[in-house]
Amino acid sequence: MACWLNGSAINELSLLERGFAYGDGLFSTMAVVNAQVRLLDLHWQRLLRGCQRLAINTEHFEHWQRDFLLFLQAYPHSIVKIIVTRGEGGRGYLADPRAATNCYFYAYPALNNVLAHQQGIATGFLTGRLGLSPLLAGMKHLNRLEQVLLRRELAQTIYPEALVCDVNGKVIEGVFSNVWLVTNGQLLTPKVHEAGVEGVMRSHLLALAGRHGLSASEAILMPDDFIAADEVFFCNTLNGIWPVRQLNSTILGNNPITQYLQQQLAYVR
Amino acid sequence: MACWLNGSAINELSLLERGFAYGDGLFSTMAVVNAQVRLLDLHWQRLLRGCQRLAINTEHFEHWQRDFLLFLQAYPHSIVKIIVTRGEGGRGYLADPRAATNCYFYAYPALNNVLAHQQGIATGFLTGRLGLSPLLAGMKHLNRLEQVLLRRELAQTIYPEALVCDVNGKVIEGVFSNVWLVTNGQLLTPKVHEAGVEGVMRSHLLALAGRHGLSASEAILMPDDFIAADEVFFCNTLNGIWPVRQLNSTILGNNPITQYLQQQLAYVR
Repeated sequence: MACWLNGSAINELSLLERGFAYGDGLFSTMAVVNAQVRLLDLHWQRLLRGCQRLAINTEHFEHWQRDFLLFLQAYPHSIVKIIVTRGEGGRGYLADPRAATNCYFYAYPALNNVLAHQQGIATGFLTGRLGLSPLLAGMKHLNRLEQVLLRRELAQTIYPEALVCDVNGKVIEGVFSNVWLVTNGQLLTPKVHEAGVEGVMRSHLLALAGRHGLSASEAILMPDDFIAADEVFFCNTLNGIWPVRQLNSTILGNNPITQYLQQQLAYVR
Repeated sequence: MACWLNGSAINELSLLERGFAYGDGLFSTMAVVNAQVRLLDLHWQRLLRGCQRLAINTEHFEHWQRDFLLFLQAYPHSIVKIIVTRGEGGRGYLADPRAATNCYFYAYPALNNVLAHQQGIATGFLTGRLGLSPLLAGMKHLNRLEQVLLRRELAQTIYPEALVCDVNGKVIEGVFSNVWLVTNGQLLTPKVHEAGVEGVMRSHLLALAGRHGLSASEAILMPDDFIAADEVFFCNTLNGIWPVRQLNSTILGNNPITQYLQQQLAYVR
């Protein structure tokens, strides 16, 4: 693992980092192949939108983007995580307006077996529920304790990924992916305005489907909508699309639209 | 500012700290006077309960407590923050079960003017709403982005502290304090099972009131309950009790029960 902070390699974090004290920041994770990241613009756009919602200073945004190209050259086959935090601070929630934003790049070893689950997985519903937080919903922020607890619950199942509902019983996402269903030829993914993450691959698929003449939209979806669906799949930028072959005890049949999207993604890559 | 990790002074944090990556931990803040911390047992008990809920390993809990006594000798007049995290990890939400829990002690300069607001403050309601997360509610965990945003909103008001509601409109707490009302001689504080922090001073007052023949309990409370109350006050372990003299445009009159509790706390200290 290697890390750069604001363009320079570092070995440790500041004790004053507000990302540590309060999770006061955002992140985005991506695969690097031949020093390239697909959908990189969408990752940066999401980080920028998140900073704007959190009022994190982005005056050096173009600097971060330039430094990142150097980082990709240094770690051309890797998994990279960009973390942006409000920077250093003392005790107390109130940030020093003079604090300088910190932009970290972490490089991890590349994944080996991303393809296995692209043939399809069995899945089900977790019992842990996502909270509702309109102030934070949609952002890939550093407050990820719910995901830590849900990932732990997932590890106790036989599923590689599973569906998670919010406290009102609406389906929101997987533990580390977004989720889609197909019904009557129409693609639907849960709204993430109360809970959940606006994933980069989710955003990409919303746009991609439209360009390919498919109907794709956000909706309020309940577990029964997924159980009755023609096709179900998870997506994120690291794993692409994981089709669901079995949901609880229900075997899903042909998944032509899921396969079509998988083919389009392979082309994009 | 000084920091110890697991009993030894440190100058920086590990890049692998899960407290940074995910806010995967808990904290508690307290005033140190003459190397003493009042209600210290309640702080440790809350940290222990939080670790149990998050499945963070506490096998060295007694070690942390012994180290902390040395830390108090080293920083006998200070504000101290204890942070407990799940320790180091790689990429991904799933923790390594072999990861060693990290226990940090931070020492900050002592507060100077804690007494001013103990004479009473003006307050009101913030517009930002707390989310509902039964998985996390009550704990003083490191996922504090909502508080960061609310603290920012508070700084744009004339209030030193303000009331915060959840997304359903129930009053939950202040930005950095718990809140109480007194009506017909009865003390009530909001339940924190869906949102909010189970503050150490809140727990202490629940028990203290009982020992002094006062009725004190948790309840679901709406803004109108506070506006109609005989007395209202905020509490936390750093600031003690801040009586509310004015809530929105309502002037509150005599506050005999609040003053009685303030006297009892001064005695405890």
